[in-house]
Amino acid sequence: MTTQAAEASVLAPGSTIGILGGGQLGRMMASAAAELGLKVHIYAPEQNPPAAELAAVTTTAAYTDAARLAAFADSVDVVTYEFENVPAETAAILAKHTNVFPAPDALRIAQNRSLEKTFLNDNGLATAPFRIVESFNDLQDAIAEIGTPCVLKTQTMGYDGKGQAKIDSAEDADTAWDAIGQKPAIVEAFIPFDCEISVIAARGPDGAIALYDVVDNVHKNHILHQTHVPAQIDDDLITHAHEMAHTLISALNYVGVIAVEMFACGHDEKGKPLILVNEIAPRVHNSGHWTQDAAVTSQFEQHIRAICGWPLGDTSRTHNAVMTNLLGDDVNAWQDFAAKPNTKVHLYGKAEAHAGRKMGHVTELLPKA
Amino acid sequence: MTTQAAEASVLAPGSTIGILGGGQLGRMMASAAAELGLKVHIYAPEQNPPAAELAAVTTTAAYTDAARLAAFADSVDVVTYEFENVPAETAAILAKHTNVFPAPDALRIAQNRSLEKTFLNDNGLATAPFRIVESFNDLQDAIAEIGTPCVLKTQTMGYDGKGQAKIDSAEDADTAWDAIGQKPAIVEAFIPFDCEISVIAARGPDGAIALYDVVDNVHKNHILHQTHVPAQIDDDLITHAHEMAHTLISALNYVGVIAVEMFACGHDEKGKPLILVNEIAPRVHNSGHWTQDAAVTSQFEQHIRAICGWPLGDTSRTHNAVMTNLLGDDVNAWQDFAAKPNTKVHLYGKAEAHAGRKMGHVTELLPKA
Repeated sequence: MTTQAAEASVLAPGSTIGILGGGQLGRMMASAAAELGLKVHIYAPEQNPPAAELAAVTTTAAYTDAARLAAFADSVDVVTYEFENVPAETAAILAKHTNVFPAPDALRIAQNRSLEKTFLNDNGLATAPFRIVESFNDLQDAIAEIGTPCVLKTQTMGYDGKGQAKIDSAEDADTAWDAIGQKPAIVEAFIPFDCEISVIAARGPDGAIALYDVVDNVHKNHILHQTHVPAQIDDDLITHAHEMAHTLISALNYVGVIAVEMFACGHDEKGKPLILVNEIAPRVHNSGHWTQDAAVTSQFEQHIRAICGWPLGDTSRTHNAVMTNLLGDDVNAWQDFAAKPNTKVHLYGKAEAHAGRKMGHVTELLPKA
Repeated sequence: MTTQAAEASVLAPGSTIGILGGGQLGRMMASAAAELGLKVHIYAPEQNPPAAELAAVTTTAAYTDAARLAAFADSVDVVTYEFENVPAETAAILAKHTNVFPAPDALRIAQNRSLEKTFLNDNGLATAPFRIVESFNDLQDAIAEIGTPCVLKTQTMGYDGKGQAKIDSAEDADTAWDAIGQKPAIVEAFIPFDCEISVIAARGPDGAIALYDVVDNVHKNHILHQTHVPAQIDDDLITHAHEMAHTLISALNYVGVIAVEMFACGHDEKGKPLILVNEIAPRVHNSGHWTQDAAVTSQFEQHIRAICGWPLGDTSRTHNAVMTNLLGDDVNAWQDFAAKPNTKVHLYGKAEAHAGRKMGHVTELLPKA
C-alpha cells in the first residue's frame, strides 16, 4: 500500500472537487464543499441526480465511459466518491489523471468482504470467525467449521442486507447458495451482540486523525433506522472502539472519512472489552448524519477538508442526538417533523418515495449529558 | 397594507423558490432550501453569481427585463429576494405572476428612509429625530431644527454607509448636500448610543412570529465587522428590543425574515429602556449569520420556512458566538481560521477579493452562558 501524503496538496477555496455518484451523500458533500468556498463537479450516470442541484457542474455518463471519466478527472482538482462500489477500472482511469481520495487501494479492500476481513484480522482487529467460499463444496465445509447459525454473504456488492442469506442449519446450504446467486462469498459466524455501534473517523494526507463519538445504531430490515449518540456502552468499550478505528484508518493510509461498523459484545472472560468489526464503508456514512447538527464539524465537511488537505475540523459533539431515517412514505410526515422543536429536518430532493428508499432524515437534538 | 395570509399556501418539498439576486445571501438561502428538499431558481443580472452554483436553475437577465421576469415568476412557486433595492416595477411584475414574500409593500417602506422612519414612528417605535429633506432649503431648515451634529442620508439606495454625510456644523450643509448628490434625503440627529444591536425576526403567513436572541454589532468603516450573541445589555433592554421587533413585523404583515437594527441608548430619565430603531432590512441579514452555527434553525432556513408556509423553526440559541466578517484580503487567512477549534468557516466562492468585499465569515462558538 502506498502512502498518499507525498502527492497530496492543499486545495484553496475556488478549487473543484469531483464527486463520483449523485445521491444524497454526494448532495450533502456538495453542500459542505460550497460552505467552504469549494466548487463541485458531479459525475453520475442517472439524469438529474439529487446532488446535481448543488453542483456547479454535472456530467451525466456511465461509470465505464473512459473518455468522459478522463475529461471529468482533468477538469477537477481531486476526485472522491459517495459509494464504495466504484468499479476498480473506473478508479484506475481517474487515478491516472488526478488524486483520488480515498485511494483505489482502500476501495478495493472495502469492496470485497474477503479482502476486508483478512485485512482487519491482519491488523489485529477482531471480526466474527469467517471462511472464504468459492463453491458449494466450500460452503458445506465452511458451515461444518463455523457452525450454525451463520450467515452467507457475497464477497462484493452487498449493502443494506442485499446479497446475504442466513443459515440456521446445514440443510439451508442449498437455498442460501441459490439465494446469493452462487457467487464468491464468505460464511460468517452469527455472533450474539449487545448493540451495533459505529465510529466515523477521518484522516488527512498529513496523517492527522480525528474521531467522532461512538454511536449506536438500530437497523430495521437490514437498513439503518436510528442512530443514537453517544452510544450507551461502557467507557472501556468506547475507548476500545476508538482505538480500533484509529488502527484501521492508519493501517489503510486512508485519506478522507471512513465509517467503521462494529458489534459491541460486552467483555470477554478476562474482562477485556470485546468488539468485532462488522464492515467498513470507505466514505461518509448514514450513521454519521448526526454530525451535521450535533458536532462542530459535520462528517461531510470533514471529508472535504481531508481530501483537500485542509486541517481536520473539530469533531466535538455539541448535543446528544437521535438521527432517524425517513424511508419511503415516512417522508410524507415532513410537516410533523418540521413543527418539532429541537429537531432538524433533512430532505434529499428525491421525487419518488418508493418503499425503503432513503428520502431524508431527522435529527433530534437533546441536552448534552 | 393587505394581509398575505389568504393567498399563501404550504409549498411541499420539491417546490421551487425563485430568488432575486445571486450574492452570498442568496447562496446561503439556496443551501438552506436544498436541506429542506426544495429547489431554487436564481435570477440575477451578473454572470456566474455565487448563488448559481447551489441553484437548480439560474436565469441571467436584467431586473428590468419584463419578459424574463414574467417567465421566471411563472416557473417558480414563490419569489423572494436577497437585497432590498429591488426596483418597485420589478416587484410589481413578479407579484402579477406569483406570491412575492416579503410583499412589495414592505419592500417599498424599507427602501425609503422617509417612509421607513414615518412608518416606525406611526407604530410607536422610536427613532432618532429626523426631518425630510427635498431641497437645499429644507436641509438648512432641518439642521436648524435638529441641531448638530447630525447626519444627512439619501432616502433611497443607502447601505454600508453609502449615501451618507455627517454634518458637524451648519457650514457643512453645502458639502454634505453635494456629497450625497443633492438627492431627496433625511436629516437625522446624531444620537450617542451604548451599542448597536439587532434582532432577526421571522413571521409566517399564518401570523406566527419567532425572534432570535438580541445581538450586538461592531461596525468598521460603516460595514459590519463583528456580531456578538447574546448582546451584553440589560435584561429590560433585551425585552424591549424583542417587543419592538415583534411590533414592527406584525405592523408590516410581514412574511419572511427581517432584520431590525437598533441603537441601545440605556435608560431614559424615568428609568425606562431607551432603544431607537436605526433601520430595517427586509431580508436575511449579516448580523444573523451566527444562527447558522449557534441556533437550532438558521435565519436562512427560517426565511425559507416562512415564505413556504412551513412551521417556523426553533430559534433557540445553542451557543454563545462571535461572528466576524472576512472582508477583502481577510480571506487570505482562511487556513488559520480553518485550523481553529470551535470555529466555523463560511466562504462565499467569490473569485476576486477586492477591498471591503464580503468574502466570507467565521463564527466562533463559545459555551452558552
